[in-house]
Amino acid sequence: MYEDKLKKLLNEYKTGELDENELFRLLKLMPFEDLGWVSLDHHRAIRSGYPEVIYCAGKTPEQVAIIAEKLISAGNSSIMATRADISHFEAVQKLVPDAVYHGAARMITVCRSVSEAPALPVCVVTAGTSDIPVAEEAAVTAEQLGNRIERVYDVGVAGIHRLFARLDTISSAGVVIVIAGMEGALASVIGGLVDIPIIAVPTSVGYGANFNGLTPLLAMLNSCAAGVGVVNIDNGFGAGWMASRINRMVLR
Amino acid sequence: MYEDKLKKLLNEYKTGELDENELFRLLKLMPFEDLGWVSLDHHRAIRSGYPEVIYCAGKTPEQVAIIAEKLISAGNSSIMATRADISHFEAVQKLVPDAVYHGAARMITVCRSVSEAPALPVCVVTAGTSDIPVAEEAAVTAEQLGNRIERVYDVGVAGIHRLFARLDTISSAGVVIVIAGMEGALASVIGGLVDIPIIAVPTSVGYGANFNGLTPLLAMLNSCAAGVGVVNIDNGFGAGWMASRINRMVLR
Amino acid sequence: MYEDKLKKLLNEYKTGELDENELFRLLKLMPFEDLGWVSLDHHRAIRSGYPEVIYCAGKTPEQVAIIAEKLISAGNSSIMATRADISHFEAVQKLVPDAVYHGAARMITVCRSVSEAPALPVCVVTAGTSDIPVAEEAAVTAEQLGNRIERVYDVGVAGIHRLFARLDTISSAGVVIVIAGMEGALASVIGGLVDIPIIAVPTSVGYGANFNGLTPLLAMLNSCAAGVGVVNIDNGFGAGWMASRINRMVLR
Amino acid sequence: MYEDKLKKLLNEYKTGELDENELFRLLKLMPFEDLGWVSLDHHRAIRSGYPEVIYCAGKTPEQVAIIAEKLISAGNSSIMATRADISHFEAVQKLVPDAVYHGAARMITVCRSVSEAPALPVCVVTAGTSDIPVAEEAAVTAEQLGNRIERVYDVGVAGIHRLFARLDTISSAGVVIVIAGMEGALASVIGGLVDIPIIAVPTSVGYGANFNGLTPLLAMLNSCAAGVGVVNIDNGFGAGWMASRINRMVLR
Amino acid sequence: MYEDKLKKLLNEYKTGELDENELFRLLKLMPFEDLGWVSLDHHRAIRSGYPEVIYCAGKTPEQVAIIAEKLISAGNSSIMATRADISHFEAVQKLVPDAVYHGAARMITVCRSVSEAPALPVCVVTAGTSDIPVAEEAAVTAEQLGNRIERVYDVGVAGIHRLFARLDTISSAGVVIVIAGMEGALASVIGGLVDIPIIAVPTSVGYGANFNGLTPLLAMLNSCAAGVGVVNIDNGFGAGWMASRINRMVLR
Amino acid sequence: MYEDKLKKLLNEYKTGELDENELFRLLKLMPFEDLGWVSLDHHRAIRSGYPEVIYCAGKTPEQVAIIAEKLISAGNSSIMATRADISHFEAVQKLVPDAVYHGAARMITVCRSVSEAPALPVCVVTAGTSDIPVAEEAAVTAEQLGNRIERVYDVGVAGIHRLFARLDTISSAGVVIVIAGMEGALASVIGGLVDIPIIAVPTSVGYGANFNGLTPLLAMLNSCAAGVGVVNIDNGFGAGWMASRINRMVLR
Amino acid sequence: MYEDKLKKLLNEYKTGELDENELFRLLKLMPFEDLGWVSLDHHRAIRSGYPEVIYCAGKTPEQVAIIAEKLISAGNSSIMATRADISHFEAVQKLVPDAVYHGAARMITVCRSVSEAPALPVCVVTAGTSDIPVAEEAAVTAEQLGNRIERVYDVGVAGIHRLFARLDTISSAGVVIVIAGMEGALASVIGGLVDIPIIAVPTSVGYGANFNGLTPLLAMLNSCAAGVGVVNIDNGFGAGWMASRINRMVLR
Amino acid sequence: MYEDKLKKLLNEYKTGELDENELFRLLKLMPFEDLGWVSLDHHRAIRSGYPEVIYCAGKTPEQVAIIAEKLISAGNSSIMATRADISHFEAVQKLVPDAVYHGAARMITVCRSVSEAPALPVCVVTAGTSDIPVAEEAAVTAEQLGNRIERVYDVGVAGIHRLFARLDTISSAGVVIVIAGMEGALASVIGGLVDIPIIAVPTSVGYGANFNGLTPLLAMLNSCAAGVGVVNIDNGFGAGWMASRINRMVLR
Repeated sequence: MYEDKLKKLLNEYKTGELDENELFRLLKLMPFEDLGWVSLDHHRAIRSGYPEVIYCAGKTPEQVAIIAEKLISAGNSSIMATRADISHFEAVQKLVPDAVYHGAARMITVCRSVSEAPALPVCVVTAGTSDIPVAEEAAVTAEQLGNRIERVYDVGVAGIHRLFARLDTISSAGVVIVIAGMEGALASVIGGLVDIPIIAVPTSVGYGANFNGLTPLLAMLNSCAAGVGVVNIDNGFGAGWMASRINRMVLR
Repeated sequence: MYEDKLKKLLNEYKTGELDENELFRLLKLMPFEDLGWVSLDHHRAIRSGYPEVIYCAGKTPEQVAIIAEKLISAGNSSIMATRADISHFEAVQKLVPDAVYHGAARMITVCRSVSEAPALPVCVVTAGTSDIPVAEEAAVTAEQLGNRIERVYDVGVAGIHRLFARLDTISSAGVVIVIAGMEGALASVIGGLVDIPIIAVPTSVGYGANFNGLTPLLAMLNSCAAGVGVVNIDNGFGAGWMASRINRMVLR
Repeated sequence: MYEDKLKKLLNEYKTGELDENELFRLLKLMPFEDLGWVSLDHHRAIRSGYPEVIYCAGKTPEQVAIIAEKLISAGNSSIMATRADISHFEAVQKLVPDAVYHGAARMITVCRSVSEAPALPVCVVTAGTSDIPVAEEAAVTAEQLGNRIERVYDVGVAGIHRLFARLDTISSAGVVIVIAGMEGALASVIGGLVDIPIIAVPTSVGYGANFNGLTPLLAMLNSCAAGVGVVNIDNGFGAGWMASRINRMVLR
Repeated sequence: MYEDKLKKLLNEYKTGELDENELFRLLKLMPFEDLGWVSLDHHRAIRSGYPEVIYCAGKTPEQVAIIAEKLISAGNSSIMATRADISHFEAVQKLVPDAVYHGAARMITVCRSVSEAPALPVCVVTAGTSDIPVAEEAAVTAEQLGNRIERVYDVGVAGIHRLFARLDTISSAGVVIVIAGMEGALASVIGGLVDIPIIAVPTSVGYGANFNGLTPLLAMLNSCAAGVGVVNIDNGFGAGWMASRINRMVLR
Repeated sequence: MYEDKLKKLLNEYKTGELDENELFRLLKLMPFEDLGWVSLDHHRAIRSGYPEVIYCAGKTPEQVAIIAEKLISAGNSSIMATRADISHFEAVQKLVPDAVYHGAARMITVCRSVSEAPALPVCVVTAGTSDIPVAEEAAVTAEQLGNRIERVYDVGVAGIHRLFARLDTISSAGVVIVIAGMEGALASVIGGLVDIPIIAVPTSVGYGANFNGLTPLLAMLNSCAAGVGVVNIDNGFGAGWMASRINRMVLR
Repeated sequence: MYEDKLKKLLNEYKTGELDENELFRLLKLMPFEDLGWVSLDHHRAIRSGYPEVIYCAGKTPEQVAIIAEKLISAGNSSIMATRADISHFEAVQKLVPDAVYHGAARMITVCRSVSEAPALPVCVVTAGTSDIPVAEEAAVTAEQLGNRIERVYDVGVAGIHRLFARLDTISSAGVVIVIAGMEGALASVIGGLVDIPIIAVPTSVGYGANFNGLTPLLAMLNSCAAGVGVVNIDNGFGAGWMASRINRMVLR
Repeated sequence: MYEDKLKKLLNEYKTGELDENELFRLLKLMPFEDLGWVSLDHHRAIRSGYPEVIYCAGKTPEQVAIIAEKLISAGNSSIMATRADISHFEAVQKLVPDAVYHGAARMITVCRSVSEAPALPVCVVTAGTSDIPVAEEAAVTAEQLGNRIERVYDVGVAGIHRLFARLDTISSAGVVIVIAGMEGALASVIGGLVDIPIIAVPTSVGYGANFNGLTPLLAMLNSCAAGVGVVNIDNGFGAGWMASRINRMVLR
Repeated sequence: MYEDKLKKLLNEYKTGELDENELFRLLKLMPFEDLGWVSLDHHRAIRSGYPEVIYCAGKTPEQVAIIAEKLISAGNSSIMATRADISHFEAVQKLVPDAVYHGAARMITVCRSVSEAPALPVCVVTAGTSDIPVAEEAAVTAEQLGNRIERVYDVGVAGIHRLFARLDTISSAGVVIVIAGMEGALASVIGGLVDIPIIAVPTSVGYGANFNGLTPLLAMLNSCAAGVGVVNIDNGFGAGWMASRINRMVLR
């Protein structure tokens, strides 16, 4: 069992049998937990600084709850589940009572210890109101990973003065996540105005020749402003994760 | 022969045998001129206010020259040829000495009478310098159709202050033609700033996931700003033609 | 609060403290109203001649009703909501009793003052009966913006005599909106017959290799008739808006 | 050797050893001629009424000449080669002196016996002048297969009166081949006007969102007029072949 | 009213005031019937030999029933409706009691007079059992238009001996309609085996990289066998219509 | 009747009237069983070593049950049905009581005799847990065809140590089936690590720019590791079938 | 240096200091040779049974020659280079005089020792003559890897009797590689006729809606015959490699 | 003139008439330099920390040289030009003698002052040797912007031990740029191994179903490893720019 092995190693570390470097080397080699239908990657927390994130789409509430419980039992103090609906949450809550549900973001989080946040916040900007679910997924993800969040919503280029009114907030962030559907022009406009790493998230908001987000995806990849990295359509989680990796560099 | 018929009709009109309405009715029914390889549409000038435009791509210099000469012989005072290279021009010039070549626009024009221009100009705006050939095609087309032109080039959103500096010029036009490649965001930004009919022209400027202009085409069709009509990729001529139709409405 | 600021400015204008130019300059700078989940762009009426239009898709009836009420409170005499179903309307009607529902167009309108209409109507043409919902969205939009409308429905090219029977109506309009699914040939045919600005709207009517409107979209963009501007698939609203911008030019 | 076998069979037929049915049965089973790099299908003339057609693209002039010579030696009185340039023709002419080159159609033909033509002609119609090479490939193919041809070129819908002027010619054909690039609307318009089998050929004429003929291909497949069969982009040969199969049905 | 006009014309024809040619000329000019939401094309029966076909998708049962009744009242002895479900049929049956429902084909027909059928049948071939609904639409359409039908179902190339067992039936038809999903190879195989006009119908049968019929559509357009005309995905009706046009040529 | 013919042939074989070669030749020519709506290919078991597989999608439970019963009556000792839901199974079970349902694989099997398995197993590997249904379809198919199966699930490249931990299992297989959605990188990684035939199955697991499996399909086709053959998206059955053909070669 | 290390290891093995297992374990860990611009993977021969294959496209003749020489110096007795033109060969030949150029396959090979071939050959089949270059790449690759080759060229389904005439050759192979452009139907037809592992290679032969091989690629992936694995368009090398992996299984 | 204005401002700053904040505010408002065909954005250096980068594709050597000279005259100490061929460089060198040409990267740089580099390098990784030009564009860009560079080339997943051998170098970088064509799997593999911001650049290396880089683009966007931002195909410059923005955050 993974947990026993873990305890033994930690004990040896405490008694001095293992030094820190050796402990970490062994932890990195420790295999995953095989539940038959899932290979739970317990040492991801060591490798990447955060335990494996649960992607709920296509999993039953029970499966999600079991994985959540296993991760907590393995000693992780924080966990995150994305694309969760309320039934996933209710199943998790039974096993992990301090789990929290974020409705707009469709996420479940548990947070038992808070790491120090970098001085600068991650700023999450949306073009319209329909982009907010994706934005919240990004925001909750980055917050859970230990960043302060600034939200600037509904400032698309059809009424560009709304953007300029919030430009100070945007330009004082450590990283900016720009979330837009339709033609996705907001990423280019912000990319031309601020000198900060920008992560662009196309959303499937739109109709007709929008092709479920293909149009803003292509537009963002072709941005005339340099320094814009793009993630998959509606992938708020990926954007929040990358934003955190960037924003927390100052703490390395 | 078309020309003989035409002369006869005009004569009858002069002597009063035909009144103006009847003359026009007959002219509208008059068949085209069949050169074997081309059905020259001589009464397009009557139907649409301008003679048939010669599309030079795929035609030999000699073919273009013959068509140009036929159109002039049929009594048209203005003609236009698009996608013309210098060899097309040289062949035309031999038969129609007052033809003019517009290098950047790749167009040949003949203009023997000038119609009154509307009070407001057509404003042609580009995002970058590589969009200029398409812009010039639009500008020369609209000018040839009797409009004043304002050119505002290289004001893409990567340096949006350049756009704001020229906003007065743009917002005092009758129609705005916005020409952009890459992600085509400029059309949405201008569409959100001015309350004027906007014609958007995507260009094939860009690389990779630009897909030869598909990206700005899709972006412009999905513009979050209402009131933007889109024409084909690199279709400066179509934009200039539509702009003129709109701009000259005040003279109807 | 936006409303208080607005009242103060209007008062100062009444008392002569502010002249008209200064009033307008300040209004243009006035920020939007931030409802948390939406940045309501109150001065769009000043910038573009009409208040922000409510796009109901993805909004709850309550959200639509609140925005509608806010726009009316801000002093707008007309408002428009698109992609509205009957439940959106019922919620709006509780707060704005004189709201009207247009079932075929799926729109809600309020109209408390009527602006002068241009002499020429906007003509809305469809190829088939299935295109009518999109056509009605265009017609109601252009009407709400102060234009007279002529409807010419079900005149597709499979029975082209139906089109010729209505050609007089079409050719005496100020702007023509052509709405077609399947192969979208109607736009090219009308574009070759009349010398009027044409806005083409592809619809998602069709099946198989129609690809939800991609085929008529591409066909319209490649129209062999010049002077055709295209909007997004099923975008009746955008077509009506652009038609109004064009048609009302004579009143500038 | 194929030729020896053939002679033997024909001899036995002449002497009465073989009756006609048995002769044909044996011919149908006769294998092809294996040149190593090509499996020459000698009995296609029996199976399909015409010998194997040589597709020259990607073959050397020498390869084409050898195949042509083999087909003639095998007793065929007619042969056809498509996508041939002048060098292919020159090589063929050395071995088959009565070969004819059709420049516009890029075809080589040999015709040593003429079969009876059906009463009605095949009518080949194009939208523009750039479609003529494809049209000529269709026309020469159908002619070579024993049909009279009517050519109606450059009658696209941008000047629809040109089409109506030629409608009598079109509607008195046995089959109509409609060839168009750009948006391909001509197929639908003719399909709605005449009650004759129509074969539509999209061409790669156009630019930008035409995507090398994809747009007219899709448009023709979605034609609102029933009874239109479509062949591959620029496939004049296929259209001519199918037209002949249809047109010659009355002779079966 | 259309019906009154029609009666008057037919009366004049009976009394000899109109000769047949003139009657037909006038009928061809007679306008359609405008029901507000539909421009009913009453003289299509004269122009194309069959009254307007009702496409039920997107129409209410009541709309279909009204159109059916109008077509019958206008004197047509046959009518056809496609993509009809049972509720459409029930509504039609109330107004037109002799209407017949074809469940597999999803069609409604009325047939009050039978025209002479050509000697050769139309043969409808499918690759699999899932292609049968499309095949039945083609078969019922061609039968209703006065052709005998031969059905050869489930003979795809994965078990090619089934095809060879039925080859005699196929090769003695006047026209062959080949219907296949998945990779659509059957059209090419039959095209190489028989010398008869072939209409290929791709179906949306398949999954994954089939892309709802795009794969067999492309395959059929690229068939290595000449003489194959393709119609839209799942368009059994169009195939049946074209097959009838071809098959009935011998009766012209 | 097929069964009678079969019995007669087998009898003649028993009595020595037929030798084995002749028996097989006749069996290969025996026609299929025509149920009207399906051409049941009874001698596929002889041709390909396994009776026709029933694809349940789009078939009623009754149709599936009838086909299953016919295949059993024809003397097959094993049958397989794919894309079966529980209602298909229940109908089959009534007629064939020893049928087995595999829920995860959505398959029905009957297995009355077991053929010898090759020494090496077929190894089925998945990148994630959502790929398991496709994996089970592959595994049950290959097992039913007489192979031992090794399952290695949820070892995607995001936690590549999980893959290395199972590499011994993978590299000792006869064939490896790699099943992955998202970006499909697992196929390339395994392809670079082992020298065994690899069949890659892209799945429709993913969202946004995954385009329902198009992305892993393209990735697998472009694998930088040679020796990877790809089947259709989600086509576990095809992969299992091909794997068995390869794995059982040693028994030929 | 790699070569020195190699010699030392082999010496120790000869003297008994290293046993075979240990030798192989060390060889597997031996790093690649870093030429600065290329990380030459010297132990691929051990891992995969054949040294790294040189892909010449985009490499200069000199680069190819250096890599070839390095591979030979490292003790490999066979090397292979694909997509090589004659200039690549000439450069290689100067350094490796026994290199052989295969013009049709565009390959360079060196073969200094011949491994035992399996009893069954690899059969390479093409639909047309234009597919031969891809076929030769597959054939030379599989031959170089120690397999006998049978070539069956130009047997496409348009003349299916040519295929049946060669069916005995095809059905007695160990693996069949089917190479086809246009609609790629040949893979399905062969897949339905033989019970042997089939590798399908789509080629870019075709035009128009063939889209450079996309059509046969999709068709092959959707083959109605099970047991077909597909490789990238024109990827003869990949097909030959996979065929060899499969065919040589009997020698494991 | 821009330069005069600049000097005046700088003088006032020196004399104390302007404080630093005011100087910067004014500089930010200073308009661009209008050369007619280009709006040179002189204050980009202030806004984004680096002067406008010259994109040479589609510009003449003379145009590039003039822009380079203008940027230097405006006081910039560093400039960069991308997609430059040797002729662009030669023209620049005449006006700016200390310009440097980077052949592999196709870039021109001038560097007159060196800013402090962050402690951690930017690591540029490629899958193959053909990806090196894109990698060099990224490397030279990031270096020019003040970062140390580590190059790890040709470590694609087909020989994954090469990657592991260099993992220490990769995991000690501040940012990793992963450049890959074909199936682009390398980005996912590295993304699963290190906890550092990753920028993925798909390249157009590959053929067939690679579609000029579309395949790795889609694969990278769908990476199963979180925290990967993607830029346009072959966009080494954009990747280098974004990497620098991220890497230099520690200096803010």
